[in-house]
Amino acid sequence: MNFLDIIQKKKENKILTEYEINYFIENYVKGEIPDYQVSAFLMAVYFNKLNLDETYYLTKAMIDSGDRVDLSEVPGLKVDKHSTGGVGDTVTLVLGPLIASVGLVFAKMSGRGLGHTGGTLDKLESIPGFNINISGKNFVEILKKSNIAVIGQTENIVPADKLLYALRDATATVDNVSLIASSILSKKIALGTDALVLDVKVGNGAFMKDVPSAVELSKLMVSLGKKFGRNTKAIITSMNEPLGDAIGNSLEVIEAINVLKGRGSKHLKEISLKIGSKLMIIEGIVKTEDEAIKILEGKIKDGSAIEKFKEMVELQGGDPTYIDDVDKFKKSSIIKDIYSDESGYVKSIEAIEIGIVSRDLGAGRHKKGDVLDLSAGIYLHKKVGDYVEKGEKIATIYTERESEVVGAIEKIKGAYAFSDKREDYKLIIEEID
Amino acid sequence: MNFLDIIQKKKENKILTEYEINYFIENYVKGEIPDYQVSAFLMAVYFNKLNLDETYYLTKAMIDSGDRVDLSEVPGLKVDKHSTGGVGDTVTLVLGPLIASVGLVFAKMSGRGLGHTGGTLDKLESIPGFNINISGKNFVEILKKSNIAVIGQTENIVPADKLLYALRDATATVDNVSLIASSILSKKIALGTDALVLDVKVGNGAFMKDVPSAVELSKLMVSLGKKFGRNTKAIITSMNEPLGDAIGNSLEVIEAINVLKGRGSKHLKEISLKIGSKLMIIEGIVKTEDEAIKILEGKIKDGSAIEKFKEMVELQGGDPTYIDDVDKFKKSSIIKDIYSDESGYVKSIEAIEIGIVSRDLGAGRHKKGDVLDLSAGIYLHKKVGDYVEKGEKIATIYTERESEVVGAIEKIKGAYAFSDKREDYKLIIEEID
Repeated sequence: MNFLDIIQKKKENKILTEYEINYFIENYVKGEIPDYQVSAFLMAVYFNKLNLDETYYLTKAMIDSGDRVDLSEVPGLKVDKHSTGGVGDTVTLVLGPLIASVGLVFAKMSGRGLGHTGGTLDKLESIPGFNINISGKNFVEILKKSNIAVIGQTENIVPADKLLYALRDATATVDNVSLIASSILSKKIALGTDALVLDVKVGNGAFMKDVPSAVELSKLMVSLGKKFGRNTKAIITSMNEPLGDAIGNSLEVIEAINVLKGRGSKHLKEISLKIGSKLMIIEGIVKTEDEAIKILEGKIKDGSAIEKFKEMVELQGGDPTYIDDVDKFKKSSIIKDIYSDESGYVKSIEAIEIGIVSRDLGAGRHKKGDVLDLSAGIYLHKKVGDYVEKGEKIATIYTERESEVVGAIEKIKGAYAFSDKREDYKLIIEEID
Repeated sequence: MNFLDIIQKKKENKILTEYEINYFIENYVKGEIPDYQVSAFLMAVYFNKLNLDETYYLTKAMIDSGDRVDLSEVPGLKVDKHSTGGVGDTVTLVLGPLIASVGLVFAKMSGRGLGHTGGTLDKLESIPGFNINISGKNFVEILKKSNIAVIGQTENIVPADKLLYALRDATATVDNVSLIASSILSKKIALGTDALVLDVKVGNGAFMKDVPSAVELSKLMVSLGKKFGRNTKAIITSMNEPLGDAIGNSLEVIEAINVLKGRGSKHLKEISLKIGSKLMIIEGIVKTEDEAIKILEGKIKDGSAIEKFKEMVELQGGDPTYIDDVDKFKKSSIIKDIYSDESGYVKSIEAIEIGIVSRDLGAGRHKKGDVLDLSAGIYLHKKVGDYVEKGEKIATIYTERESEVVGAIEKIKGAYAFSDKREDYKLIIEEID
């Protein structure tokens, strides 16, 4: 077999066999197929697509390129969630403790932020002492003690994805549903949870710009997950404004804590409850969403959810007093309010623009390895549907970078669009079971 | 500017600007754009194509990546021809002396064989002493003395093509008309001849498998040539059997000599006369093809064509006595006749298969740098339209490789297809002016 023939075959829109796909991944990871052949292949895949079987074989081969995390020693029903990535999306930090407080095992491997905002790991590291570099073995130990852990990807999980993702990023071959789905699912399946709910973002701040493509990706991932024997569901949610009110690492952690304490962003809570109830239904804890939400709301009210968060922080070496008193989080030296130049109902807030400003203020990375300012970011006082009077405060920025302030104010104002009449913001657009 | 954006643009089927195409070629040749980005771009070009303007800009940028050969010091009307490559195609060695003997300047830079058979340079090197490594300056000097020279590509002619061709070859992105046309034309335009006739092969032994694609490529190359101010024409000729009767390096030289002496393959002569008359008409020497052919036939009859060939051989350091007496060429130690298992009219001879067998007998390269056996090859005694009696001799093989003989006989027999009734072989399929 020769990889050139495989490129040619996909170029001619023929269906690849499992053997051919295995050959590709095995030899690419071994370094025996050069990047320049793989990138030509990826572009051919972009144009001619992969069918469900080919996508399944690709995902399987990617998983087999590395280790799996065996959770069989951990008792209980193990669940996982994944978001395709949005701005102000701290669902993991709300959902995790919430779902763990009803007895499910929340076993999560997260990533660093590669785009404009920090990832879950970056956010958690704003809690002093919090350790995300935990081996597979210790991950299992922590999950056995408590039923929640959020850690970084262990070294040898799906090495094929690391190679492929970097190459796709450099060759304009990211936006193909099969490549996206295999990248996401391979890492989820390599981690042995029973159930998985995917949150596929759509809108100006998301990778999927329109609902049909989000539906296509969701359906593919749900089918794939099921082919791997995982109970998989997806929701499609709007990213036509940042999800939470806070954007930035410690700012988002504080917001998650607030939600778990019964305050904070209603959208963050809404999605967390939705995913939480789906997981509870999958695992047979309840029959209906209403039942689930009642139980989850109860866990917020009685303090068990925030206690679970504290327990997680403690077990991973973090300082739990920060959870009790969020004022302990380091504050930015520059904190500046932004006032509206216009009156009207907020129609949309360009999430991608808010993400970029937040990055420039210090909260995100321009390139891999950049050190983050974990306190930097933006707080949005007005969201879609709110009425704003000219001169009213719409947002606050947090930074150490004096030179970025003027530009940030300009861009944040520009990210707001207003309308004469109030429009409803439909957060959860579709559910794919 | 960023090459990633250029890949994205072509992926989205947008038209690239001259500036973007220049950026690509300049930076690729400088080593500032990695192969893995270029191969993704080439695959996007395969799917979304380049229009005539983009192809022109690409060709221009490729030419500008290196030196041009300035022929302005050479007096007279300078002409060139190019064949897209077939099996048993020695037209250059017949046409060159023929057209030079009527007073036109035949200035030709040729390539080595990269496919199954040797190239014109390999063939010429079967004449002891023949030197193809001639600098641009010496090329001009030889052309001023005589009006014919066939040399290897000088070092810095279209370096972009060398890089791109190697990459296309390794990434299944060879078969796009714009990429083919820019590769061929860039090298032709970099050499400053006035007129150019292209011989585009079509059929089982050619790169273009069907007439419509050959027509598309021909029209594109003729348009491109004209955009560069060159008087360019094309003919489309059949490659449903090897062109000449001989396949192999010295075997083909001997056949060309025979044609120039008034004997040998009628097809080789037919195409040489066709291209020769086109060049004569372009240059205004004659008005009609009939006139041209009469003059060209005269040059064969009166011995001036073969004398021109001898003059070229001498000026390039070769031993001219080989031209007078072709028996001087080294003979293979294994010479074996092949007899037909069937009776009937020859319907077709799988040219690609004949090329491959010829390579395996020693006449072609498996990989760059392989040393050729210049005597090895195949002679076909029966061609399309000939009647063959079972047991009659159809071909003869020449080799040093005992181990290849049995397989070669089998494959050559298999390459012949027979029919009950005689079918006409249309050699020149179309002419594109």
